[in-house]
Amino acid sequence: MSESTYEYLDKINSPADLKKLSIDELNILCSEIRDKIIKTVAQNGGHLSPNLGTVELTVAMHYVYDTPTDKIVWDVGHQSYTHKIITGRKDKLSTIRTKGGLSGFPKRSESEYDAFNVGHSSTSISAAYGIARARAVKGEKGRTIAVIGDGALTGGLAFEGLNNAGRSPKNFTVILNDNKMSISRNVGSIARYLTHIRIRPGYIRTKKVVEKILLHTPVIGNPIRKVMLHSKSKLRVSVYRNTIFEDLGFVYYGPVDGHDIGNLIDALNASKNVNQGVLIHVMTKKGKGYQYAEDEPTAFHGIGKFDINTGEPLSSKDGFSAYFGNAMCSMAEKDSRICAITAAMKLGTGLATFAHKYKERFFDVGIAEEHAVTFAAGMATEGMIPVFAVYSSFLQRSYDQIIHDVAAQDVHVVLAIDRSGIVGEDGETHQGVFDTAMLNSVPGAVVYSPCYFSELEHELHKAIYKYDGITAVRYPRGAEPYKPDDYVSGEEYTVYGSGKDAVVVTYGRIFGNACKAKEALKKNNKDITIIKLERIKPISREAVSIAAEFKKVYFFEEGIKCGGIGESFCCMLNELGFKGNFSLTAIDNKFVPQSTVAEALSDLGLDCDGIVNKLTWN
Amino acid sequence: MSESTYEYLDKINSPADLKKLSIDELNILCSEIRDKIIKTVAQNGGHLSPNLGTVELTVAMHYVYDTPTDKIVWDVGHQSYTHKIITGRKDKLSTIRTKGGLSGFPKRSESEYDAFNVGHSSTSISAAYGIARARAVKGEKGRTIAVIGDGALTGGLAFEGLNNAGRSPKNFTVILNDNKMSISRNVGSIARYLTHIRIRPGYIRTKKVVEKILLHTPVIGNPIRKVMLHSKSKLRVSVYRNTIFEDLGFVYYGPVDGHDIGNLIDALNASKNVNQGVLIHVMTKKGKGYQYAEDEPTAFHGIGKFDINTGEPLSSKDGFSAYFGNAMCSMAEKDSRICAITAAMKLGTGLATFAHKYKERFFDVGIAEEHAVTFAAGMATEGMIPVFAVYSSFLQRSYDQIIHDVAAQDVHVVLAIDRSGIVGEDGETHQGVFDTAMLNSVPGAVVYSPCYFSELEHELHKAIYKYDGITAVRYPRGAEPYKPDDYVSGEEYTVYGSGKDAVVVTYGRIFGNACKAKEALKKNNKDITIIKLERIKPISREAVSIAAEFKKVYFFEEGIKCGGIGESFCCMLNELGFKGNFSLTAIDNKFVPQSTVAEALSDLGLDCDGIVNKLTWN
Repeated sequence: MSESTYEYLDKINSPADLKKLSIDELNILCSEIRDKIIKTVAQNGGHLSPNLGTVELTVAMHYVYDTPTDKIVWDVGHQSYTHKIITGRKDKLSTIRTKGGLSGFPKRSESEYDAFNVGHSSTSISAAYGIARARAVKGEKGRTIAVIGDGALTGGLAFEGLNNAGRSPKNFTVILNDNKMSISRNVGSIARYLTHIRIRPGYIRTKKVVEKILLHTPVIGNPIRKVMLHSKSKLRVSVYRNTIFEDLGFVYYGPVDGHDIGNLIDALNASKNVNQGVLIHVMTKKGKGYQYAEDEPTAFHGIGKFDINTGEPLSSKDGFSAYFGNAMCSMAEKDSRICAITAAMKLGTGLATFAHKYKERFFDVGIAEEHAVTFAAGMATEGMIPVFAVYSSFLQRSYDQIIHDVAAQDVHVVLAIDRSGIVGEDGETHQGVFDTAMLNSVPGAVVYSPCYFSELEHELHKAIYKYDGITAVRYPRGAEPYKPDDYVSGEEYTVYGSGKDAVVVTYGRIFGNACKAKEALKKNNKDITIIKLERIKPISREAVSIAAEFKKVYFFEEGIKCGGIGESFCCMLNELGFKGNFSLTAIDNKFVPQSTVAEALSDLGLDCDGIVNKLTWN
Repeated sequence: MSESTYEYLDKINSPADLKKLSIDELNILCSEIRDKIIKTVAQNGGHLSPNLGTVELTVAMHYVYDTPTDKIVWDVGHQSYTHKIITGRKDKLSTIRTKGGLSGFPKRSESEYDAFNVGHSSTSISAAYGIARARAVKGEKGRTIAVIGDGALTGGLAFEGLNNAGRSPKNFTVILNDNKMSISRNVGSIARYLTHIRIRPGYIRTKKVVEKILLHTPVIGNPIRKVMLHSKSKLRVSVYRNTIFEDLGFVYYGPVDGHDIGNLIDALNASKNVNQGVLIHVMTKKGKGYQYAEDEPTAFHGIGKFDINTGEPLSSKDGFSAYFGNAMCSMAEKDSRICAITAAMKLGTGLATFAHKYKERFFDVGIAEEHAVTFAAGMATEGMIPVFAVYSSFLQRSYDQIIHDVAAQDVHVVLAIDRSGIVGEDGETHQGVFDTAMLNSVPGAVVYSPCYFSELEHELHKAIYKYDGITAVRYPRGAEPYKPDDYVSGEEYTVYGSGKDAVVVTYGRIFGNACKAKEALKKNNKDITIIKLERIKPISREAVSIAAEFKKVYFFEEGIKCGGIGESFCCMLNELGFKGNFSLTAIDNKFVPQSTVAEALSDLGLDCDGIVNKLTWN
């Protein structure tokens, strides 16, 4: 399967093989791993910058620790390619992020070396601490190591974990992978604070020197030494405690150069002897070793296929996100109340231009979706119109804030939900299939689900100006789907066609597939009507009553079935006295694994063929 | 309306009236306010300890700040009684927490002095910062002040807010109300760290002394002064930075005695001149001024009516929570894998005995519901059986962790969801009416909803042993509802009665009301069948097919309608070819305001009369 000829990598089939190599050989191995990662991502797409930044760190960890007995919990997990390569999966790396292939993230089902499934940010400390405490209860040994980036550290969950894990027993280690970035440049006080620590590399040495001076220079004895060493620890504390992490109960080591493998191995080894939880601060460079990625780590954070020689992407990225960004700019130009908020996703959500043009109305709050919503609610009480642009699956973090801080006090906050529906290759953790059910349950929420760019703009306008309270526009990743020439968008719903044989009800981009299905069915002398919901909550009663005239109603939903829009539609049909047949095709009580978007929609029966089959057989 | 005769309080109708008083008079006023609060809570129930702890602080704030132009954002809001008394609502205080009366929490609709609605913990910094930034964009003046307890500071959202608000412009103030407690004693690194700050009250003075020494004692010039003041800020920083809050970009003031009103006024006034965001660390005593509450601040945190002279509650608190705690203890005795996790709710969730008996398997993680779930997932990967006991409305914080860390990787975590359904007097923010819809959308989740103590125990056992993955048992606040003598619980569902006129489908405690309705209807010669769902997700197909045999199916649900169990049931009925009438009574796209539980259920049509009416009229 593998055609590579790597001098050292070819011999690495498990972490045990690493331990036979010298530092020099490990360095060569790291180059080979980088080469393999760059080639793989160029071909499959995936996360490049984070993986290039953690090659030496990962090699050093597997060199020092006794994995899988020692458990490594990766935060986010988009930096785990080297880990996968080392732990017996290098020959399958070419399958990464494809249907049935290796996951782009750690997965317990994939390898005993993967301690915890992941995809979202900021979970590692909590999960690792749970593992450590469970082992303590059981009386089992083994070290647990959480590897977390400085970006992920801005998430509240990470702080909750730190707060709980401080002064933990030994064998618990947090490795802070500090590359000054989340996906974009990291923001907030913690980021500034880390910069502050970074610029004093002499920290450990200096501390030792001063300690020596304090203890051995007699003249210092009075009055400084007295104040510092004896006055009820008032100032001694100030001298000896140097980082927030020590305040939180960790022994702090660092900063360590994350690309100096000898140094890393020394630091990790030294930390093993500490009789308390340790935080090791490692400095890495995102994109390390591939010039294009070093220069533009954000562009190469998560990418599609690209040309290795030029760094150019092989497909265009323009889609709903870019269109959203443009729409925001033109509205912000006319209305000074409009603000944009992102949780570390400026580029991904299409807000780069907005951020540049309306700097004072643009807020990157870090990877902090909870805060983003409550912060927006605060702004809204002052009459601003905050638009929080966020990926669907990450919005799951804000459920309580949406209910408690926005809906319950009825302030006007707009959610621009990107990556709604199937996202494809990132798999289970990133599919945007829960936002529909989540918002369906929120009292007073108004939710639009456009299928085309023009609808996005029109519906965003309505979400901003037509309604108060919590409003949302959700749109998929990527480009517009198929659009029939004679299609004209409606307001709250659109009726397309006038066939009598059945009615298909759907929303979002599945409408494109429904149109294709309509055309296919026409060839078989079946003529259907399509009702496309523009506003999926509240559902238009008019739309339901039109559907109720049919004997057969087929609802297709690119979202979770239980609690979703289709079930609400069904219930409304019944309330209108509907006595026909109702069929609901949606994601039924399961997670959707990685594949292309087209493959997933096909598997779910939501592509043209699936719709045709449903209408033919049922 | 008011019959009080308070020398000073009677003259206070707005904060402006405060400013006419001397410090001595303000002290008397504070005693009067305490007296009023104690009497009111003894009569209505409510939050006592938090309010008694913040009397002086609140008076000082309204004395110093220019409210409502200056905006005070209370965290949690259960400490806002003094604020309400001062801001023109003292005569309505006797209506607090009753239907149509004053809310027990700040509410924007109630007063222009209430800047932000609240009820859940840890939102204040984010909300206040949103207000402050909005004002900055608008070019408006006015100070924004977040008042947050040390308990609330353990919530990740608070940290996300701090991280974002650090180095904020002036006019932004965080007041840390440090009483060493969440509801129970505060836990974690931050709590330990605050203790550390507290024990050095000489902080400001000491710092000044050392500064002086450094600058004016010549002998210090070499080598210490050089190292400290000139070596690229390496150690100077260590001497001058004294708290985490300064690291996070705030100017730190404190600790200040929160019951010394003169001191408080001085500190608040001084902080107004700082040209940067300020954090003022105020030490208060929960329950201050009422001996029973000082001695047992947790018992008097949130309470029902009580006897002022003895401190004894007027009604028993034994209910589902206590029963749950006992069940946990007996299971933990037999099975060493069972662990209990709480987010600062040891007492409220009935886990006090468990915590005492199984110390090493009990985990209070602080007000950190996100962490609680991910931590539990980590434990579960090690084969432990973590049971997270949590109030329904607070579980909303864990939606993403339930999906991402538990369900998606299919580890076994048990949720014991207390206060499910209507909770009553705490109102909108605390009603447990979203957990049903929330968990309904989670793939693979198994959810039980017992109505009686014996069912709670039996179903908890099944949630622990019969199923894997994410399982839950949800139960209401308080005591068992009405139970017919001939009732025998089923497994996944129970059919009660055999009437042919209609079928009522319901779950949880509404079954008690349905039984009463059945009896009432019988007197009118209507005989109904009741299907009680024990397991509400997945819904038993058998139960649906039994319902499908009736022409009229009436579903009653103490939960949100959209996305809830009733809609799923309706959809399953349709899939079985049901052609009858389906009626769903649930909480329809609205929040449920404060009242007694009985009043709320009546308003929602979920009491006996409501059910009878529905079956008679429809």
